[in-house]
Amino acid sequence: MFENSGRTEISHLGEFGLIDHISKSIKTHQTSTIKGVGDDAAVIDAGDKFVLISTDMMVEGTHFDLTYTPLMHLGYKAIVTNISDIVAMNGKATHVLTSISISNRFSLEAVEELYKGMLAACNAYGVDLVGGDTTSSQKGLIISVTCYGEVAKEKVCYRSGCKPGDLVLVSGDLGAAYLGLHILEREKRIFLERPDFKPDLEGNDYIIQRQLKPEARIDIVKLLNDIGVQPTSMMDISDGLSSELHHIAKQSQVGFTIYEDKLPIDPIAYQRAIDLGIDPSTAMLNGGEDYELLFTVSMNDYEKIKKEMEVTIIGHAVDAGEGLHLISKANNKHKLSAQGWNHL
Amino acid sequence: MFENSGRTEISHLGEFGLIDHISKSIKTHQTSTIKGVGDDAAVIDAGDKFVLISTDMMVEGTHFDLTYTPLMHLGYKAIVTNISDIVAMNGKATHVLTSISISNRFSLEAVEELYKGMLAACNAYGVDLVGGDTTSSQKGLIISVTCYGEVAKEKVCYRSGCKPGDLVLVSGDLGAAYLGLHILEREKRIFLERPDFKPDLEGNDYIIQRQLKPEARIDIVKLLNDIGVQPTSMMDISDGLSSELHHIAKQSQVGFTIYEDKLPIDPIAYQRAIDLGIDPSTAMLNGGEDYELLFTVSMNDYEKIKKEMEVTIIGHAVDAGEGLHLISKANNKHKLSAQGWNHL
Repeated sequence: MFENSGRTEISHLGEFGLIDHISKSIKTHQTSTIKGVGDDAAVIDAGDKFVLISTDMMVEGTHFDLTYTPLMHLGYKAIVTNISDIVAMNGKATHVLTSISISNRFSLEAVEELYKGMLAACNAYGVDLVGGDTTSSQKGLIISVTCYGEVAKEKVCYRSGCKPGDLVLVSGDLGAAYLGLHILEREKRIFLERPDFKPDLEGNDYIIQRQLKPEARIDIVKLLNDIGVQPTSMMDISDGLSSELHHIAKQSQVGFTIYEDKLPIDPIAYQRAIDLGIDPSTAMLNGGEDYELLFTVSMNDYEKIKKEMEVTIIGHAVDAGEGLHLISKANNKHKLSAQGWNHL
Repeated sequence: MFENSGRTEISHLGEFGLIDHISKSIKTHQTSTIKGVGDDAAVIDAGDKFVLISTDMMVEGTHFDLTYTPLMHLGYKAIVTNISDIVAMNGKATHVLTSISISNRFSLEAVEELYKGMLAACNAYGVDLVGGDTTSSQKGLIISVTCYGEVAKEKVCYRSGCKPGDLVLVSGDLGAAYLGLHILEREKRIFLERPDFKPDLEGNDYIIQRQLKPEARIDIVKLLNDIGVQPTSMMDISDGLSSELHHIAKQSQVGFTIYEDKLPIDPIAYQRAIDLGIDPSTAMLNGGEDYELLFTVSMNDYEKIKKEMEVTIIGHAVDAGEGLHLISKANNKHKLSAQGWNHL
């Protein structure tokens, strides 16, 4: 058995601390390795283009709750969130491999539902499922997806290329997936107390769909290409806007000034946030799981991008020394932490 | 929650049945997809060469037992067994991505041990660790490894190319990993009854090493290349020789005749099998986990390959209608099932 002497809890480091810690020991042997750990996907030189590969693991009880997550939606989301990582490198996803580990609680019909969702996502995005593994677990469901894609060498986009003065943009709207999760968790709590209870999801279709069935913004990569804008940095928003801004800030060695009144939210999501007593800006900054794109472009591209309806300019990059701040609607300057921002 | 109506147990189909079942629903969208599910690795056209990708999931309690598996060895094995899948396509592994899911039972030091083993394997095989994911699990340790590699287009080797008359070969020796597992399980049972007991592993170094720290036969791929032999089919022996012969038979539409007296076993492993009351041939045919290569070559290559010490000719391919058989030492013909072969 492994030794527990000199035990340090993983929680002391956190996920990103752990990754940083392990990354220090990694040596590179292959000249084809362009980018390893630390971006949305690894980048490998494949001759006339770059190959992109990303992998993610989803664990029952940590990443999803089968009480309110249909297995078909879960399968769809598992594929889409991985495609989103390839999109975040300005690339095109082409292939996936999916591994699942299941306890004997799951029937063949359950596994079929899961794969039906995975294959629906593959068909929607024109991606081929080319491999995987199925194993039995002692407890619960674990899904691991690896996504493979490609990008023209001159188009690849890292987290590290943002410069002070660049514009900061996000696609679509933010916060809805978080509010959807909030509703689902609320209905679950009521259901557990009163099993005869029928969930009240009326009027919450949009925010629940954002949580259960997100999409990858392949249209934004196409748009940027069509209007001739090469982002200086990009990543997808899985953990929350604030957290992702800190990743780009760290890797690009910049700071950011973000304007609260520019943050995009869907009108229904805004109303639900108010109903639920959640600050809409908190939902947008801390929520995560919308799988929208956060990216920066040179100020020179302002004219090209300003009229595009699918993206919103939310601020600009500043010198690293200035740090990360949010300018509130009341025009106050608040420090933006990786955990986000609280009105109080 | 998913429906249990019309419930079919996964165990009715088995792992391979489940994969076959799911594979039927897969559609191909990308012209670059050369080979999807069903071989040791997927094959993707990357322009002037083929890219190979394979993924595997290892689950505590199913694939490994931390009572007797040092985490460093486990990390090493997780990488090597995936490299072996690329090798089995006659390719060269260049990159890996590793995801782990851990419960809070694991300390930072434990995770470091695991990654130390993974990185030791990466360094030994000149492979770059370029990505992954770390998540928390409700129970136990789950490891998912994706291996990426490449092969010249004319060198790729599938399970499907064997023809009647071809010679059947294996690299190295078989059965030792299975016997090593047997010893480890025996010592564990004694240890659980008598915690003051010191494991007696004396004289079992080789077979235990074969179980805990297997290697991928990159030397065989090099050898075949050097002597100018292109295998007609190849796979690595992870589940057992009999099982793998059935995979090749099915995909190549052939049968096999295998000779018991040709099966290669290490002399120490042979003696341990006798000591343990295990038929050595059963260990070789059913054991698995040696990660040796099983491959077939054209009879025309006999002169080139017959003197190579690292490989053994164990039989030949026959027409599919003849089925799979083992010719015993007593010259009796036994049907060879996927589960292997029993003396009795």
